[in-house]
Amino acid sequence: MDAWTIALCQMTVVPDKFANLETAREMICAAARRGAALAVLPEMFNCPYDNSLFRDYAEPLPGGATDAMLADAARTEGMWLVGGSIPELDPVTGRVYNSCGVYDPRGELVARHRKLHLFDVDLPGGVTFQESATLSAGNTLTVVPTPLLTLGVAICYDLRFPELSRLMALRGAELLVFPGAFNQVTGPAHWELLLRARAVDNQVFVAGVSPALNPGASYHAWGHSALVDPWGTVVAAASLGPELVVATIDRQRLRQVREQLPLLRHRRRDLYRVSGGSRGQEPG
Amino acid sequence: MDAWTIALCQMTVVPDKFANLETAREMICAAARRGAALAVLPEMFNCPYDNSLFRDYAEPLPGGATDAMLADAARTEGMWLVGGSIPELDPVTGRVYNSCGVYDPRGELVARHRKLHLFDVDLPGGVTFQESATLSAGNTLTVVPTPLLTLGVAICYDLRFPELSRLMALRGAELLVFPGAFNQVTGPAHWELLLRARAVDNQVFVAGVSPALNPGASYHAWGHSALVDPWGTVVAAASLGPELVVATIDRQRLRQVREQLPLLRHRRRDLYRVSGGSRGQEPG
Repeated sequence: MDAWTIALCQMTVVPDKFANLETAREMICAAARRGAALAVLPEMFNCPYDNSLFRDYAEPLPGGATDAMLADAARTEGMWLVGGSIPELDPVTGRVYNSCGVYDPRGELVARHRKLHLFDVDLPGGVTFQESATLSAGNTLTVVPTPLLTLGVAICYDLRFPELSRLMALRGAELLVFPGAFNQVTGPAHWELLLRARAVDNQVFVAGVSPALNPGASYHAWGHSALVDPWGTVVAAASLGPELVVATIDRQRLRQVREQLPLLRHRRRDLYRVSGGSRGQEPG
Repeated sequence: MDAWTIALCQMTVVPDKFANLETAREMICAAARRGAALAVLPEMFNCPYDNSLFRDYAEPLPGGATDAMLADAARTEGMWLVGGSIPELDPVTGRVYNSCGVYDPRGELVARHRKLHLFDVDLPGGVTFQESATLSAGNTLTVVPTPLLTLGVAICYDLRFPELSRLMALRGAELLVFPGAFNQVTGPAHWELLLRARAVDNQVFVAGVSPALNPGASYHAWGHSALVDPWGTVVAAASLGPELVVATIDRQRLRQVREQLPLLRHRRRDLYRVSGGSRGQEPG
């Protein structure tokens, strides 16, 4: 499909998990009414972004109540769904991950991304977080071919590592999707900058989807969900509050930018290469 | 040295080579009077940015009149100099490169960077350029330890390839210096974005130095020379016209940002690696 509609569901996350599932479901329905072929939810959309809650809220993926809702919503609305992220409990190991499920329009879970980089920081203004205290990190890149475009999926802090976006693009990703929850320190400083830089460097579309700012929560998300085109232009963006961002993605734009400025072809692979690391090899 | 002064010499380039050398010399002297320990000149500061002129203006480096002026200026003013770039004639092969000389305060040419990526593009608005019609590309990364900071030097289009900046940072560069001449299409779209993204991703200082816009020239440079700190903040920047940008660089800022947000340490080298390509190996 050359041109189609994407919806970024910048929802408010509250302590009640089932209220969150209802809000997510409503935004997905609203996206479908606006003609979206793909809807994206934010990071930790069923659980407040709080280390002390991740294990309590965690569910298997596939297998939990959130997975069931997302699969049903995708099938009922007949759309692709990038299910933000949830705390995922691995029933075998007992580990908890920050994980994103991708559903096709038949409601099949076609991919699951476990956040690769855990957010362990000590920022100015007293913003500290130590995801590794409760979460485990994934070990696999997530690139998902779809009839819309090939998706590259990663979560929040994963956005900060340019090698990851580059590798996803080299493996065919044309739309990078980042459920994320930057905060009031990193958000204004870096969120849009990084979304745009990944788009420009790799000549791909980039979607970043954040929870809305909830002033009552312990962690203050930056919001500002945005879609960026392969030239780095912000096509559509939200502010701080709850908002459904709807925009058109046209594959022709990607082809056009890559012809005008053939960056990927001009890489000097004799001077530098990005490869898949010790867990996997990939020419780059 | 922990804190010191950098000067970005955004000069107007005219067809008269010796007038350009005089302008450059005057800006270097002005930088010294402002207390600069390092001055940076723009890309192609002695020659209009025009394929049909590069060979006529080309000089050996070391060995030409421009090299002599820069060495003398560095020694006389007792400062470090990143000599923008000039068309360099290799006297042995007859090839012409887009090259940057780096001079220490004794006037010694301590490094020479030959632009690695040639600018062959066909942009919207009728902006086309084909550097490879006249220029050859270099084959070596340029990282220069100095008592100020370790410099990584690259030129203009080299800025667009994130692997290169990453490799320079991994090889110790703390200040990336890009003489560059983005134009009226790519400048507003990408110049500041890319300078800031390289700074944020690699947690380094980044200086981009452009010629001023000369409305009478065939190629309209974007200007907007800027210094960016390791948090991605634009510390100081020029507009379109000729301007000497003076700013302070404090090594402590680099240490502070890397402690707050330990990006380089959080890289997943088991999942991706940047290496030196077939011409060189470097762990990343």
